[in-house]
Amino acid sequence: MSEQNTRILLKSRPVGDVGLEHFEWVTTAKPRAGEDEMLIRNIYLSVDPYMRPRMNEGKSYFRPFQIGEVLEGGVIGEVIESYVAGFEVGDIVQGLLGWENYSISNGSGLKNLGKDVKNLSDHMDILGMIGATAYVGLVGMADLREGESVFVSAAAGAVGGAVIQIAKLMNCRVYGCAGTDQKVDYLVNELGLDAAFNYKTCSSVSETLADMCPEGIDVNFENVGGRIMEGVIRNMNEKGRVALCGVISNYNLPTQEANDGPDSCGLSVGGLFMLISRQIKMQGFLVSAYPDLCREYGLKARGWLAEGKLKSRVSIAHGIENAPSAFLGLFTGENTGKQLVALSSEEIRSGI
Amino acid sequence: MSEQNTRILLKSRPVGDVGLEHFEWVTTAKPRAGEDEMLIRNIYLSVDPYMRPRMNEGKSYFRPFQIGEVLEGGVIGEVIESYVAGFEVGDIVQGLLGWENYSISNGSGLKNLGKDVKNLSDHMDILGMIGATAYVGLVGMADLREGESVFVSAAAGAVGGAVIQIAKLMNCRVYGCAGTDQKVDYLVNELGLDAAFNYKTCSSVSETLADMCPEGIDVNFENVGGRIMEGVIRNMNEKGRVALCGVISNYNLPTQEANDGPDSCGLSVGGLFMLISRQIKMQGFLVSAYPDLCREYGLKARGWLAEGKLKSRVSIAHGIENAPSAFLGLFTGENTGKQLVALSSEEIRSGI
Repeated sequence: MSEQNTRILLKSRPVGDVGLEHFEWVTTAKPRAGEDEMLIRNIYLSVDPYMRPRMNEGKSYFRPFQIGEVLEGGVIGEVIESYVAGFEVGDIVQGLLGWENYSISNGSGLKNLGKDVKNLSDHMDILGMIGATAYVGLVGMADLREGESVFVSAAAGAVGGAVIQIAKLMNCRVYGCAGTDQKVDYLVNELGLDAAFNYKTCSSVSETLADMCPEGIDVNFENVGGRIMEGVIRNMNEKGRVALCGVISNYNLPTQEANDGPDSCGLSVGGLFMLISRQIKMQGFLVSAYPDLCREYGLKARGWLAEGKLKSRVSIAHGIENAPSAFLGLFTGENTGKQLVALSSEEIRSGI
Repeated sequence: MSEQNTRILLKSRPVGDVGLEHFEWVTTAKPRAGEDEMLIRNIYLSVDPYMRPRMNEGKSYFRPFQIGEVLEGGVIGEVIESYVAGFEVGDIVQGLLGWENYSISNGSGLKNLGKDVKNLSDHMDILGMIGATAYVGLVGMADLREGESVFVSAAAGAVGGAVIQIAKLMNCRVYGCAGTDQKVDYLVNELGLDAAFNYKTCSSVSETLADMCPEGIDVNFENVGGRIMEGVIRNMNEKGRVALCGVISNYNLPTQEANDGPDSCGLSVGGLFMLISRQIKMQGFLVSAYPDLCREYGLKARGWLAEGKLKSRVSIAHGIENAPSAFLGLFTGENTGKQLVALSSEEIRSGI
């Protein structure tokens, strides 16, 4: 195991597409924990679409990344040196840490999962923020009821997979789309979608959906925005609900204003009118604002997982040096399920 | 008073801008009521933006107008001949009737206001659907609370004026925009807006609003969509609410799909992302779906009106033959307050 610490910094702010040129790789000595600090060996790093807007200047819901600073993301790791009360060597911790092999922390914001933790990647996916996001959107925002019909865009992605499984557990019909035939096949044959389509090869999302689910869509779990969302809204039922979770079609656009580019339209005026005429509610949300629902979900998810009713699906890249390319892959649809980066073996414990 | 009946029919379906060429004027003899029918002398006709989408083919929330049929709208009139139980000569009735001087009805869908009715135009504005729309949007959809800040587009229009008055009665700060300096002046000096701007001469809605209400917008009552809505959303506070009432910027567009034209974008992907990052709820609604809230409003409005706290503001065109041009004026901003067409004198009663 490396005694060096490779860290990924933001080199420059992307305007438009993010690329490898916006990252910087530096290698330092493995750090040591100081007074009231602990040293964490990072095991898995999560790369997520929301990190792209954090690379822009200006306020988002997160403090923007700073140029020359190490990037930050969801990490699960093991405490290998500790001078912090409540954290012992061998404890598994989870929280926001750097894109690096080793992190120093005073424990602030970290969740201590204890020593007896299995299947760490589950905690980065279906048992973590990913699963909770799906639940808060479906149950909290969209008030999903048994037997309704649900559509989810980016269905083969991390949140998409969780949405599908939770909606299926609620006896709903579930439809979705993805960007390759292989993913569509996976959605229908492995995740059990009632039907799915490849949005890249379908000429009209609206017509495809009209054929696919003539009963209409009650709940749209939106991850994309733009052309796909437009087509879904045209197939929504009266008093439908849109849980607005992400707009990945936006994140790499050079401009953020309406009419500034051919791809910058999130919803047409005709689509807005449909929100009125069908009395549709659209609600944007951040999972972090709903701790009670997250706890409620955590209890249910543990039960479902134990009964084999819920599964975690991850794509794993290896090595911190590959974190930037794994991140870029989110925008070109490389991943199926949650994209993680394995920084260190899950099996080696307390290997200081 | 004319013994003839002038009626306005839909001549052809507009594609894009509606014009006088889409209407047909016909004159027939004054009709007579048959068995179980009554004859109504129409006094005021309401022309409203939602009638434009009704001129298109295909299902909206209303049955589309048919070519060659008389157009339909909100009317208040007087019964001048009746063979319908519960309706007597001299009763004032309100409901959906034709764009014509005299209507025949079997009473279905008509509200009988009785004989002792004053200020009939109030019932077509602040005491009717207009006031109720403002109330349902502000209270029902947007859950407006005392002391919040409210923005309303098309503020000098019928619903805009009601929104302003109701929000002011709830001790809110209220901002708005309109399309002429004269209207902006009227909004601030007569309706008591905290501030307003002319959207036609302002280069950036977003920057104008940022200067005008640095505290941010809690509730947006949306009548327009597109560029104005985009700028407002960029100034909304966390957990803000958008009551989506109308998209008048859409109604005259030849195409209804995103990216089909430079003006067809209702909200950019950047705007959608803002809905997420600020956790904003946007809800489309039809006033007719909330009868309980309408009754609640009716009681309050009668009290407020009696105390002089609520005022009706109407623009009145005269003569059924001028109904089409009054209707067209809604899209070019000719009206201030509720646009009505006076078909017959309010004062002449039972003048069969």
